[in-house]
Order: sequence, then structure tokens, then C-alpha cells
Amino acid sequence: MATPSSLLLSLLIILSLASEFDIARSDPDPLQDYCVADPKASTSSFFNGIPCINPNLANTQHFTTSALSLPGNTKNLFGFSVTLTNTQNLPGINTLGLTLARIDIGARGIVPLHSHPRASEVTICLIGRMVVGFVDTSNRVFTKKLGPGESFVFPKGLVHFMYNEDGKNSAVAVSGLNSQNPGAQLVALAAFGSKPEIPEEVLKKSFEISECEIAHIRKSLGG
Amino acid sequence: MATPSSLLLSLLIILSLASEFDIARSDPDPLQDYCVADPKASTSSFFNGIPCINPNLANTQHFTTSALSLPGNTKNLFGFSVTLTNTQNLPGINTLGLTLARIDIGARGIVPLHSHPRASEVTICLIGRMVVGFVDTSNRVFTKKLGPGESFVFPKGLVHFMYNEDGKNSAVAVSGLNSQNPGAQLVALAAFGSKPEIPEEVLKKSFEISECEIAHIRKSLGG
Amino acid sequence: MATPSSLLLSLLIILSLASEFDIARSDPDPLQDYCVADPKASTSSFFNGIPCINPNLANTQHFTTSALSLPGNTKNLFGFSVTLTNTQNLPGINTLGLTLARIDIGARGIVPLHSHPRASEVTICLIGRMVVGFVDTSNRVFTKKLGPGESFVFPKGLVHFMYNEDGKNSAVAVSGLNSQNPGAQLVALAAFGSKPEIPEEVLKKSFEISECEIAHIRKSLGG
Amino acid sequence: MATPSSLLLSLLIILSLASEFDIARSDPDPLQDYCVADPKASTSSFFNGIPCINPNLANTQHFTTSALSLPGNTKNLFGFSVTLTNTQNLPGINTLGLTLARIDIGARGIVPLHSHPRASEVTICLIGRMVVGFVDTSNRVFTKKLGPGESFVFPKGLVHFMYNEDGKNSAVAVSGLNSQNPGAQLVALAAFGSKPEIPEEVLKKSFEISECEIAHIRKSLGG
Amino acid sequence: MATPSSLLLSLLIILSLASEFDIARSDPDPLQDYCVADPKASTSSFFNGIPCINPNLANTQHFTTSALSLPGNTKNLFGFSVTLTNTQNLPGINTLGLTLARIDIGARGIVPLHSHPRASEVTICLIGRMVVGFVDTSNRVFTKKLGPGESFVFPKGLVHFMYNEDGKNSAVAVSGLNSQNPGAQLVALAAFGSKPEIPEEVLKKSFEISECEIAHIRKSLGG
Amino acid sequence: MATPSSLLLSLLIILSLASEFDIARSDPDPLQDYCVADPKASTSSFFNGIPCINPNLANTQHFTTSALSLPGNTKNLFGFSVTLTNTQNLPGINTLGLTLARIDIGARGIVPLHSHPRASEVTICLIGRMVVGFVDTSNRVFTKKLGPGESFVFPKGLVHFMYNEDGKNSAVAVSGLNSQNPGAQLVALAAFGSKPEIPEEVLKKSFEISECEIAHIRKSLGG
Repeated sequence: MATPSSLLLSLLIILSLASEFDIARSDPDPLQDYCVADPKASTSSFFNGIPCINPNLANTQHFTTSALSLPGNTKNLFGFSVTLTNTQNLPGINTLGLTLARIDIGARGIVPLHSHPRASEVTICLIGRMVVGFVDTSNRVFTKKLGPGESFVFPKGLVHFMYNEDGKNSAVAVSGLNSQNPGAQLVALAAFGSKPEIPEEVLKKSFEISECEIAHIRKSLGG
Repeated sequence: MATPSSLLLSLLIILSLASEFDIARSDPDPLQDYCVADPKASTSSFFNGIPCINPNLANTQHFTTSALSLPGNTKNLFGFSVTLTNTQNLPGINTLGLTLARIDIGARGIVPLHSHPRASEVTICLIGRMVVGFVDTSNRVFTKKLGPGESFVFPKGLVHFMYNEDGKNSAVAVSGLNSQNPGAQLVALAAFGSKPEIPEEVLKKSFEISECEIAHIRKSLGG
Repeated sequence: MATPSSLLLSLLIILSLASEFDIARSDPDPLQDYCVADPKASTSSFFNGIPCINPNLANTQHFTTSALSLPGNTKNLFGFSVTLTNTQNLPGINTLGLTLARIDIGARGIVPLHSHPRASEVTICLIGRMVVGFVDTSNRVFTKKLGPGESFVFPKGLVHFMYNEDGKNSAVAVSGLNSQNPGAQLVALAAFGSKPEIPEEVLKKSFEISECEIAHIRKSLGG
Repeated sequence: MATPSSLLLSLLIILSLASEFDIARSDPDPLQDYCVADPKASTSSFFNGIPCINPNLANTQHFTTSALSLPGNTKNLFGFSVTLTNTQNLPGINTLGLTLARIDIGARGIVPLHSHPRASEVTICLIGRMVVGFVDTSNRVFTKKLGPGESFVFPKGLVHFMYNEDGKNSAVAVSGLNSQNPGAQLVALAAFGSKPEIPEEVLKKSFEISECEIAHIRKSLGG
Repeated sequence: MATPSSLLLSLLIILSLASEFDIARSDPDPLQDYCVADPKASTSSFFNGIPCINPNLANTQHFTTSALSLPGNTKNLFGFSVTLTNTQNLPGINTLGLTLARIDIGARGIVPLHSHPRASEVTICLIGRMVVGFVDTSNRVFTKKLGPGESFVFPKGLVHFMYNEDGKNSAVAVSGLNSQNPGAQLVALAAFGSKPEIPEEVLKKSFEISECEIAHIRKSLGG
Repeated sequence: MATPSSLLLSLLIILSLASEFDIARSDPDPLQDYCVADPKASTSSFFNGIPCINPNLANTQHFTTSALSLPGNTKNLFGFSVTLTNTQNLPGINTLGLTLARIDIGARGIVPLHSHPRASEVTICLIGRMVVGFVDTSNRVFTKKLGPGESFVFPKGLVHFMYNEDGKNSAVAVSGLNSQNPGAQLVALAAFGSKPEIPEEVLKKSFEISECEIAHIRKSLGG
């Protein structure tokens, strides 16, 4: 059986990949019909966004993906998986300023508290039920239990969550986000699972907790 | 049985409503956490976007909608229905720059050739199969048949379509668009179903067709 | 005498060139005084926009062009010609987010129904008269006959046209567009003149016309 | 005969009107097809941009203007006139992010050194000849004499000028600018013709000139 | 002596005020020289941003503030104070898309882990020393101890902190942020100090902690 | 002793460097967490903005600078110095759309009349006193004497100044600007100190001065 720390390791890898080519709005506008992401260019030279291939070489495969067709692996510490369109699996989306996301949440799984630094998000619950909500900058919480077909919107940059209370069944949602790379920052991992670690005094004073509690949370999170 | 023209009338009403509070990206960025659309203000005074209610009065209902939970009525000339989040059914989405759309296409139905003047779109096929495609400004076509879970991206402002070839089963897709009001312009209706009519010479010369053919298309489209 | 199809061929070449370096607003803002388009870079590497030359090498020639000084060739199917400033004939306009266009319309010629996916346009009639108009997303038409010195504005992404009713004299207009590459999509050519062809069923159902009519329009458009 | 100071007075009135509804790019994007400027709203309540009328009341007159059809009055200190589309004479341009300008320059007249704080500009000389140029932020000058049909581009926010060297004939140009309100700041008037006056020490030290010279320039400019 | 909970109450009030008129970039561009915030309008009608006064009534007081001249009160749970320019104390900054912030940190005080949903931030340490840092979306931490005159930049939307290790002396910094209302979300308060409370299961699963630990943190934070 | 012209030479070098990597808002939004400026790429290839290094190679040094820690050299014609964060001394600020500036003004020194073509600016006076002000596009002046802790905001693209009236003591301010490269155009140098020179007739007519006066100003400015 996977230990929490090995699960977290996998999760961190998934997340770090996700953060490399993830979700967010407010992108600059396109300057041509399309700018299909160039897989070679993007590993050797770096820009604000991704260079593109010769537009004459664009073909249908660049504008389609089956990346969201299969359930993600939810066997990790939190019991969720997020699969995103991005400039690797859907290179034609480069410069267009949006992302589609498939969210799978296992029984009692959670998309833990997180924010997207570069996008708002609107989600629709497709299968199962999920408690969703966000916190505004006045620390006011808006929360609701969604059933199939119900939608919810999470404003740009604010902390939010999705939780599957059901003990038996998975839940699935699809989200639109208005950036080709929204980014996702999981609150608990940013605070307690970072490399290198955030100075202990900062955590003690930010959360008003003890060194011992910090160590405990870090361990629980697989650190 | 509904006649084509009465169906078209309904469709035009739906579409004109849609165009009033519809789909598209590149919106200005928000200047606060949220700006819940004020239903009263939006009927008496008009701005670039929709005025909002006092943020202290925002509640969870403003950020959720079940508008996309039911199939739209596809019994019209084209056999499709598009239901959008907008500032009326989801007032909390105001200023956030994105839209979620549910697309229902009946057997052999079509979302006819159209463009969104203010948004790119990324879609995922949920049920059934659909042939989708877009035309770039060099008149090059990119087209593909999507099955469940497969996605396709339509660049901003370009003409595109979605077609359900199946003679028996409906198809359903969900799209994200990067504007709170993308707008939709159906090519055939813009050209042949407008009020008032586009001058006949313009249509004759744009499509290289005769008055007789124009009259025929207009009649077929229910005019 | 040129056959329709050879004329269309020329037109398609012109248009495909146009679409490569054409017209539209909402471009990202510049990050320096100027970024003169680099002719070499733009054929070997591709970005959202055009790379620039070393700013120390910029000279006056980069900021001026006589491309709009001569009438365009209007001997084609539609009887019009559009000449644009772009990053090839006016490299200093790169990143500045605007385009100037010269429009020549022969006697009874037309700039056929089209839209700019990335720009609004404001035009001034300089010589002759022209009927201009646009269709909004509710299929409402706004149309007017312009004389010399009269202006008209076409909102972003909406279908519009310019028609010279006069049987003897040409008309000339100048337009400003708010993108360095607005793009232009001609409705009839996008629908009936694309390569590859849009699936016939899509055209039949979008326009409610028969295969025979499609074939006829395609032939008339020179396909 | 008009004295310099009364001429300047007229000019200042013209310019202050101009600055109220003038020229510039980078405007926020539109959130609907159009947002026709409401003349009443714009005098009693103020926003970032201009409120609009009920879109159902929009008509063709809102999208057209003959404001640029006649030569402006160039009988002033500098011998020029600039007429702009704006939300008063062309209310349909509101939110669309661009301006068209007609520039008349009398014999030996000048559009004096000025900048547009919110737009780039691309101009085409229609009649006569004019020496045009701009200064970049390294104080490098790019200048050229334009003849009919020749174009020049002035990057956003940089000081530029247009000068008609000819002693007998007027010159006319048309410009596109990428804002609905670019604004124009005339260098000499901003420095020496402001109300209230810029503190004398600031002028002395900015231009390295004496009080006497300042007084002389102020008088020459009609102050 | 102030109890933690009453201190927190004050802090929450301060923060909720702050969040009402706080910090962030990517704002829409201005459409006129200035749009001085109208204090009356902003309490009765609400928009994306703040309505403005008649520009003719603008005066120097609207463009200046002494709000940042005095140290903020750092006698609270975290030992810090942030004072911001905003549309209330500096109404002329409305629509201009930036904020200046004064940060006071008492001995051993902290600006706890937080993010700005709508702005990047660049700070300069003026007095004392402070350990600053941010976490990227891969949970990588960048941290440094700043002395007087040293600057640090925090990318948009990412969690960051500022900590004064010194046991005796206060520290002061000034920051620029690129929005007129960046917003600030304090991680610990968003998670454990919200009203209403985030569902306990969400916190348990996000942080992998027990109900008992949650209760303890809530109490420590003054809830 | 330094002659005015050699001082100006130094100043021009400083300013031309400044203009190469200087100050301004409205930048495109970032498409990733950060895009650390690549010093090599930026000297051989040129883009709208600066290419970045492999994000895996980013380290803390890229996000911090001590460039603003020391007073700039104010021994020049105007008696001021502006030091900016930019993509050379703070490469991590690339794509983030803001700049921090340190302004030193010697006794009776001035930041002469200038504008930033790509940014608004908000400043705080830290040491000494300074008379600041700006001119709007109606030539209306807003001016105020700032003491320590007092702030002032300069709208985008408008001419402004900062003047230290004190005959004995220096003044220091810090400013935030909302672009990574705002640019600065000094009115007098743009007009009278450019290379090549602006045509004399343009200066004569713009300022209503004589050739003799122009020669005198040019000489005073060190030309």
C-alpha cells in the first residue's frame, strides 16, 4: 500500500507538472488566428507564453485532445485529480487565453483549499455531488452543495475548494478558466509542503501554531 | 406542428436574448473580488458591462446556477440549443470574463456556422459524437469528429460549427468561453435572416447568387 | 479574359496574404517605445506577434510606407481591393496595436460580407459613395450610404460590408482598425470557398439549401 | 484682425474641448456589441468611459458622422486644425477603442510638438506634403517628408509633429488612433500656456532659460 | 490588556476595510486623463471600479494624500500594519491601476502568509530588516533577508510573507502594486478565521489535521 | 569642474540607458508565475518584452536587488537622479508589469518636465520636501508641495515634474509605476536636445521662438 509520503510525492510531481502547464485568465490577446505551441521551442527558449510553429504546418491534431476523456487517478492523499488542457496536450490553445479542466474527486475526496493566481473559474458538476465554496478577501465564505448540472463561479485569485461528501461514489466536474495557464496554489502545501521549507517562525506566526504542530502537519502532508 | 417560420421566430427570440447576455473573452479585468450584476440597474442604465449590487448584499445564490442542468429545446430549424451562464442566471460572473455553455444537438442537428465576436471557445463532447471545425482567415478548414471526452478549441472570432451526424441520438457538449458576453453571430441568419434585410445587391455580390436564390434561402430560413 | 476561377484564385492568394499580415484591436500593449518587425526572424521562428530588430538599428524607413499610395487592383470577382499597413510594409507598427487600410471599390464592386476577428474598424469615405452596414448579434442591420468625408464605425467581430452602387465610378475609403493584425473572414468564401471544403451537410443545414445550390455557389465563387 | 492672444484663447477652447473627447489606444475591451454613448448620462454622472443608451434604441445615426467632412479652421497661432471622431459626434464608437482624425494644416502651419497619452497613431497624407517625425525616449528623432498616399506611425505616448513647409498650399491627413479618447498634450502649451502657470523655477530649470525668456515665450503663445 | 480575540476583531475590521478598498494590477486602462473617485456615488451605486466626479471639479487635493505618513498600529495578533493608497484617501488614483503601500512591522511581527488576487508587488525595505519570500505554484520557495534599500518582487497572486526577526526594532517598507485594488487574502484567516466557517471536513482534509487542531488554531487566531 | 555639455553628455547616457530599461503600466499580463529575464537572449534577439531563462534555473537573486539602496549621482545639469528596478538589475520583475523607482534630487535640483509614455506613477516623499505637479490635456496644472510621507499620483502619459526648492538639502522619493518599462521623455531634451535635431522650423513654430532663442536653449542644455 502506498504510504502517505509516497502518495504525496506522486501528488507533488503531478502538481508540479500541473503548475508548469496549468490554468488562468487575463492573458494578452492573440495577434493572429492561432499560434500553435511549438514543443521544441518551449524546452530551449522561454518567453511570456510559448513560441509557435509555422502556421502553415498547423493541422487538426493541434486543436483537439482526448486528455480529458479518462478519469484521473484519485488515489492520493486528497483523493482528487485535475486534468487540464494546456499547450502540451492541446497546442492550438496557445495564446487563446482559456483552459478546460476535468476534475475527478473520489469518495470523500477533496480538491483542497487552493487559488488560481491568473484566472477565474466556472465549474459544472457532471456526476455526483460536491460541496464547493470560496473565501473573499474579507474572509467571507460562499458555499453550496452542487448536484449534476449545477454550476458555480470562483472569482480570480480567491481561495476555494470542492469536496465530495459521499462515502461511496466519485464526483466529476468540468471547469472553464480564462487563462491558458491559470496556475494552482494549494494553501496547505504552499505553507507546509514547500521546498525549501518556509521559515518556521513565519508559519508559527501566520497560523499561531507551535513548532510541534507544524511538524505534525508537515508529516501528515507527507513531507 | 411548428412551421419553419414560427420555429425560426422562436429561435430568433432565443438568439436575440442570447446575444443580449451571451458569450466571449478579452474582457477588462475585475477591480474587486466580485461585482454581482444588479438586475434592476441593468434595465434602466447602461454601461460597458453590468452595474453591480452592494457587495455586502452578495450571497451564495449569486454565484450558482442550475441553468445548464436541463437539456435545451432542440425542436427548431437547426436542431440545437445553447444555454449559457450569463449575468442574469449567474449574476456573480459579472466582470469575471468567462462563460460556461451547454450545447444540445438533436439527431442530425447542427450548431450552424457562427462566430463569437468577443471570445475563444474550448469545448468538450460529453454525450454522443459531433463533427466540429473552424475556418481560419485564409479559408483553411480544421475539422474533426469528437467522441465523448474529446475536446476542441475554436480561436477567437473565427467561423465554426458543430454537427451531430447521428440520425437517432442527441449529443451534448460543454464549452468554456473567455468573456462574460462572447456574442454569437450565425452566418446564414446574419446574411439572410436580418431585420431589416441586407440590401439585395450586397447579398447577390457577396455570395454570387441570384435574387431568386436569395428569396429561396430567406424562405427556407423562415423569413 | 480572366475566368471567375482564375480571378478567385488570385483573390484567394491576395486574401491569404492579407490574412497573414492583416488588421485588429485589443492587442497586448507595447513594452518599449517600438519593436520594429524583424523580416528574418518572422520566417524562421514564430511567436504571438513578430520579433523585432535591435532597436539601435531602427531608422526612419521602418516607420513609413507608401503601400497605400496607389489604387489596388479591383479586377476580381467582387471588384474590390484592400491594402493594409502591416509588419511587412511598415515594420515599425509592430506591437503598436493598429492598422490603416485603403479600400478601393470598382464600379458596382463590393467588399463582400466579412468580419474582423480581432478589431473594430472606423472608416472614412474619401472618393465616391458607398453603402455600408453591419449586422449585430441579434441580426439587426445598421446601414447607410456614405459620401465623401462621411465616416462609419463597425464594432469588433461583427459582419459588415461596403458596396459601391455607382455603375461608372470607383470609390475609395480609408479605415483605422485597432490591431496590427485584425484578420478578415469573408463570409461566403469561409462557407463555400474553403480548403478543404466544409462538410456538405454542415452547409446544407446552416443555410437550409440543397447540394445542388451549394455546388452552384461554389462554382460561382470560382471553386 | 485677431490678436495672438485671442487666437490662442480660441485655440485653447478648441483644445480643451478636444481634450475632453479626444484621441488613444489600450482601452478596455467592449462587453457587448456596442454601447452607444448616452449624451444625457455623460453630463450628470461620470465613469471610466461613457455610459450608454438602451441598446434597443440604437439606430444608424449613432454609427455615422460627417464631422470629418469639412476642413477645420486653421486660422490660429499654429495654423492647424484637428477634428476627431468622439463619443459626441459618433456615439456608437463608445467602448470600441479607436478614433479617426482629420488633420488640416494651413500653408506653413504646424501640428506642434505633442503627444497622445493613451494611443499610438498611424497617419496617411491625403493632400499636399508634410514633414512628420517623432522623438523616442532616448531623444532620437525619426523624421520624413510625406507626400500624398504616404503613411507614418507614431508610437504611443511619444512626442511628435507634422509640419507643412509649403508657403502656399494646405495639407490634409487622416489618422487612426487606438483609443476612443487618445488625448493630446501640446508640449509648449503644457509648459508655457497652462492655467495655473507651472512654477517659474520649474520652467527655468527644465529648459535652462531665464525668467525673461519664459515671459517672452508665454507672451508669444498668447498668454 | 487587549485579548487576542478583541485584537483579532480589530484586525478583521481593518482587513475587511482593506479588502474593500485595497491593492492589484491588470486593471482596465483609463479612458480619460483622470476619473477622480466620487465618494457619494460609490456608496449608492456599484460598478466595476468607482464612478468619478465631474472632471471640472477635480483639484489638487484629489491627487495627494498623507495617509502613508504615519506608522500604522502594529499592536495586533500578527504585529503588522499595512496602509494603502486607495480611492478613498487618494481619489485621483481611480482608474490609474496602481497602489502604494506602507508596511509597518513591529518587533518580531509578521505580515502573515497572504496573496494579492489582482496584483504583483515590488517592495523596498526602508527601515530595519525583514525576511521576505514567496511560494510559486510548484511549492518552491524564494526567500531573502532584506536590509534598508533592498527590494524584492512578489509575482501576481502567489502566497508571500514579510517577517521582522528583530526582537527590538520595528521595520518599515514601501511597496508598489499594479492595481488600484489588489486585494489581500491572508491564508490562515481565510482558512480558519472566515465567517461563516469553512466546513470542518474541508479543513481537515486540506491540511490533514484533526477537529481538535482546527479548534485550537481557530481559537489562537481569535475566533 | 564638469562643463554643462559634458554633464549633459553623462545625463544623456544615463537617460538613454534608462529609456532602454525604464518605467510604465498596461503591460500584457504574465502567462506563468514568473519569466526571469535572460541577460543573454536580450542582447541577441528582440521581442515585445524580454525572453526568460529556464524557470527551473530561477533563484532568489533574480527576485531581489540593492540597486535602489544608494543615492544616485545628482551632479548634473538638472541636479537629479532616478534609479529604477528593471529587467537587468531585477530580472524576476520581467512580465510582472511594474517598476519601483528611487528619485534623488539635490539642493535646488529638479526632475524636469517629463512624461512616461507607458505608465501612471504614484510617489511618496521620504526625505526633504519637493514641489510636484502635472499638467492635464486641457493644460490645467495640479501642483503641491510634499513633505515626508506625503504621496502624489501622476496619471499615465501626462507631463509632470518634481522640484526641490530647498537650497541646502537633498530630497528623496520612491515611486511605483505600472509597467516594467514606463519610459521617460524629458520635454526640453526631446525638443531641444535630440539627435538628430528636430527641424528648426518645427521648434520655432511649436514654441513661437526665434532661431536665436533655440540656439541659446540648445547650448544651455549642453548641445
